[in-house]
Amino acid sequence: MQLTTFSDYSLRILIHASLKAPELSTVGEVSHQFGISRNHVMRVVQFLGQQGFLQNLRGKSGGFTLSRSPKEISLGEVVRSTEQNLTIVPCFAGEDTKERCQIEPSCRLRGILQEALSAFLLVLDGYTLKDLLQESRGLRQLLGMSH
Amino acid sequence: MQLTTFSDYSLRILIHASLKAPELSTVGEVSHQFGISRNHVMRVVQFLGQQGFLQNLRGKSGGFTLSRSPKEISLGEVVRSTEQNLTIVPCFAGEDTKERCQIEPSCRLRGILQEALSAFLLVLDGYTLKDLLQESRGLRQLLGMSH
Repeated sequence: MQLTTFSDYSLRILIHASLKAPELSTVGEVSHQFGISRNHVMRVVQFLGQQGFLQNLRGKSGGFTLSRSPKEISLGEVVRSTEQNLTIVPCFAGEDTKERCQIEPSCRLRGILQEALSAFLLVLDGYTLKDLLQESRGLRQLLGMSH
Repeated sequence: MQLTTFSDYSLRILIHASLKAPELSTVGEVSHQFGISRNHVMRVVQFLGQQGFLQNLRGKSGGFTLSRSPKEISLGEVVRSTEQNLTIVPCFAGEDTKERCQIEPSCRLRGILQEALSAFLLVLDGYTLKDLLQESRGLRQLLGMSH
């Protein structure tokens, strides 16, 4: 069981933007610091902009920054948004007959896994991006930020 | 975020064995009923035998059955055993430098996701295989079992 790479990168990019503020983060520096391809970073930054987590500023001195303060962005909200497939098991996928499990109509597993997933997300709802930044000095050093 | 196909198949196979008992389930019928290849079923059955969930009986009239009663097999135990990769995000993987995240030494995300994972598994610890069988009549019909 893993979060998608997309969620992983999203969280790292939001952390970078939080630490860099009020300056803008750029695709280039995030790509360099985390060793993630520019294409990947661009795709995630665009998505996070569409979802209202980031403000993207175009142009030569452009970049991105958080659109809200870190304490207003819960990790549960981020993960619900970036994990487009919270299906846990294929029977969650619903009416798709290819993936349909034979015993789904009488099986209780789906409800139990849904309950487990809710417990997972509830923990994440209890934390915000700000909680990830407690060691902001160390984080900035690791990311080669000068302040 | 999804459980592996291996966990999904494991749970289906344990359900089949529970419903078929005291008769043996066979690889052939599980493969047929769930539309899973014989190879996949065999691999999972072998693993569940090694892990002490199933008893495998070889030979012409062989097959497999639960090695304990359904109420003694918790879903948490099964999923912990079948999900060989409960790493949630790559930084859980530890010292593997290829996957190593730059900010891991100062990042609190790992601990928070570990807490969320524990909450997920704790819910599953609260249920056993027996809880999945409440609609056993319906389940048997869906699986083409005669009784």
